[in-house]
Amino acid sequence: MNTKSKNIPLNFERVDEWAATSRSAHRLEKWLFTRLLRAMDDPPIAVRLWDDEEIQNCPGPPEVTLHIREPRALWGTLIDPELYFGDAYSDGTITVEGDLSRLIELVSVHRPPIFAEQGLLGRLTRLFAPAPQTNTLSGSRQNIHHHYDLSNDFYRLWLDREYMQYTCAYFPDPAISLEAAQIAKMEHVCRKLRLKPGDKVVEAGCGWGGLARYMAQRHGVNVRAYNISHEQVSYATERAAELGLTGRVEYIEDDYRNIEGEYDAFVSVGMLEHVGTENYPSLGAVIDRCLKPDGRALIHSIGRNQPKLMNRWIEKRIFPGAYPPTLGEMTAIFQPYNFSIVDVENLRLHYALTLQHWLKRFESNRGRVLEAFDEQFFRAWRLYLTGSIVAFRLGDLQLFQVSFNRCELHDLPWSRGHLYAEPQPPAAAVPTSPRAPATVRPAANDPRPRTLPHRPQ
Amino acid sequence: MNTKSKNIPLNFERVDEWAATSRSAHRLEKWLFTRLLRAMDDPPIAVRLWDDEEIQNCPGPPEVTLHIREPRALWGTLIDPELYFGDAYSDGTITVEGDLSRLIELVSVHRPPIFAEQGLLGRLTRLFAPAPQTNTLSGSRQNIHHHYDLSNDFYRLWLDREYMQYTCAYFPDPAISLEAAQIAKMEHVCRKLRLKPGDKVVEAGCGWGGLARYMAQRHGVNVRAYNISHEQVSYATERAAELGLTGRVEYIEDDYRNIEGEYDAFVSVGMLEHVGTENYPSLGAVIDRCLKPDGRALIHSIGRNQPKLMNRWIEKRIFPGAYPPTLGEMTAIFQPYNFSIVDVENLRLHYALTLQHWLKRFESNRGRVLEAFDEQFFRAWRLYLTGSIVAFRLGDLQLFQVSFNRCELHDLPWSRGHLYAEPQPPAAAVPTSPRAPATVRPAANDPRPRTLPHRPQ
Repeated sequence: MNTKSKNIPLNFERVDEWAATSRSAHRLEKWLFTRLLRAMDDPPIAVRLWDDEEIQNCPGPPEVTLHIREPRALWGTLIDPELYFGDAYSDGTITVEGDLSRLIELVSVHRPPIFAEQGLLGRLTRLFAPAPQTNTLSGSRQNIHHHYDLSNDFYRLWLDREYMQYTCAYFPDPAISLEAAQIAKMEHVCRKLRLKPGDKVVEAGCGWGGLARYMAQRHGVNVRAYNISHEQVSYATERAAELGLTGRVEYIEDDYRNIEGEYDAFVSVGMLEHVGTENYPSLGAVIDRCLKPDGRALIHSIGRNQPKLMNRWIEKRIFPGAYPPTLGEMTAIFQPYNFSIVDVENLRLHYALTLQHWLKRFESNRGRVLEAFDEQFFRAWRLYLTGSIVAFRLGDLQLFQVSFNRCELHDLPWSRGHLYAEPQPPAAAVPTSPRAPATVRPAANDPRPRTLPHRPQ
Repeated sequence: MNTKSKNIPLNFERVDEWAATSRSAHRLEKWLFTRLLRAMDDPPIAVRLWDDEEIQNCPGPPEVTLHIREPRALWGTLIDPELYFGDAYSDGTITVEGDLSRLIELVSVHRPPIFAEQGLLGRLTRLFAPAPQTNTLSGSRQNIHHHYDLSNDFYRLWLDREYMQYTCAYFPDPAISLEAAQIAKMEHVCRKLRLKPGDKVVEAGCGWGGLARYMAQRHGVNVRAYNISHEQVSYATERAAELGLTGRVEYIEDDYRNIEGEYDAFVSVGMLEHVGTENYPSLGAVIDRCLKPDGRALIHSIGRNQPKLMNRWIEKRIFPGAYPPTLGEMTAIFQPYNFSIVDVENLRLHYALTLQHWLKRFESNRGRVLEAFDEQFFRAWRLYLTGSIVAFRLGDLQLFQVSFNRCELHDLPWSRGHLYAEPQPPAAAVPTSPRAPATVRPAANDPRPRTLPHRPQ
């Protein structure tokens, strides 16, 4: 996160000192917060102000206490909670006693209409907010650099060890480990893509290259994986060389719009959030250009039920240029090119659980995060991870896996049972020999056209 | 189909006689058809005119011969093939030697751009075409009466015997019978809805009531099923009484817009095609009104990859008011009410296979169809069924099963494996005792919120 733009003290030892030197809370300030809690149906939240005065209207004992340590934190949060709360929590002018996720959950569920996106304050604050970062070729590079080039060591502290998947895992059983769930996710994606040994696969936005390595190792395919994060591409290339995958997996530091070649499968896991709806037709054109007639494709992306801008604090401090689309908005990728959507799966609770694993590991590595960054950074990321857990748990965010192919692909499986037929491979086993191709039994009355007249292009 | 509006001879014995008395084909007419075949890349189609002159440009032997038996059939088909060919084929002024589905396939794949929806003739003919039937409350009743009230005995000749499902079946194995595949479809739908004994289910557009009976018999639920086809509701009510289901299944002759009550599940199989996009928000409002907070819902509908009007001949003669939507258009049902789409499955090849079964039974019952209707009716339905097979085979039509629920439903399965876990029940077994509810194993780190604060409405 960009700390240069913010003139705030970073020494947390002194937080109590500033609070002590501040003026006492004005009657108006207390009244406003009392009104706010009332508008929220008096949730089990107490508010302690900088002069230690406590406001609470809830009938029972409060579950969480919000400690507002400076007057400006109170006014900022009252006027533009979406943006200001995050900054105030990060710099410690607001602290929370109790479960942070419970606080976010209570506030999300009880949010007064005036703060909603279509509410008065929601509209006003958006009106004066700077425009989100755009995802032009250079804009995308800046946006991606901001988040993904923080440091590989930082992400290694809390992502799964082997594949460093910074996207939603798949928990067919919620009790399995994060490592097993990330492998299960990659296997699930590979099965949806119906990969077979020797297939040429292109990946748009490959992170640290884990899925590309997995596909090459377990499914015997050749992968070209594109990414504009320099740090990630360096790591991925090195790791593939260590594993003897050079020649079978190629990482390219370039934008998805520059993808070239023809492929049996197109896959993109967790990139669409950074593409921007205005670029969906170009993404569709890229897929149309590079997918073979019998190719299969999959896009995995955070999404929404209704169009809604990204939380402004997350957009500003964590993920510039990010936007989670609705399924309807996503169709702008497929429709112009007559792609057939064959399967959509919503995995939102899987992302909540993935984030819980990440947060736990992140918190347990506090000391090592502070060696590289500072307390403000640590608190900002804690808030971002916690807020995301709540958003996926409550259904404010969705996770769509969309499988699609050309309209002309008729060799489709008769059931999705093959995704569930065998147990997921164990997390420890990483065979290097490709799997045998699945056998397909032709049926006498199979309506799939096999002898379609080919029209020259 | 409405035969009164058309002044054409119905006696097929005399077809050859008219052809014989007609004038010979003009040089312009032959030239035009030669040009047409050339514009279609000379497919293996021969055209024989009323004077027995044959036109064929294909390099090899023709696979199909189109016999145009009257000059007006030639001109009609040249100017407005989408509408005219169907009528001319039905009344026998055009006949086909060879495989009708192969002809339709060749013409679909090789259709010259001028006849495409956005082509010159396509646009012109749509410009002068009457508006499609609307789906107001009374318009829907007329449209549905036109098709579904033909006669129960007619549909009984070629639909599956027990459940009379006039919608896409589900063939987990393409070799199973139509009867087994319709049961597999209903079971698939029930599993997607996660029905449990005692659930209250509402069905919008229930056909002959087969799914409602199946749900009550096999899953122990109580069903209210709405339908505006008088013939179908009478049949369904009678059949439920015979099976001792009165009190557990109630059929209501009314429009889906008048659904009342609160339900654990909403299901609609094959009705959306008759709703009209302008009514999607009202359909969403009906579901929003009647679905309990933890309710599950499913809509099964013919669809498209890209918005496109229904084939005009089918819209006029077979299905007035019908329109198959894209997935993007369907989101107008879900988005305004914040419904979460949890699963989409595209079953288009299953519909092609279903239609193949129907056509085979229909053809083998030619004699009995002719007892009740006439040759023209028989040929129109043959064309409609054959054309639909080709449309689903080639991907001009899709079949979407969309599962959704309220955003607030957090008790979601961790995998779709339960849809595939056990074998489908055998077609013959129809137990009357409800199934035991599936056991759900809670997990320690399950992120599904169970203690969410309830906000009073």
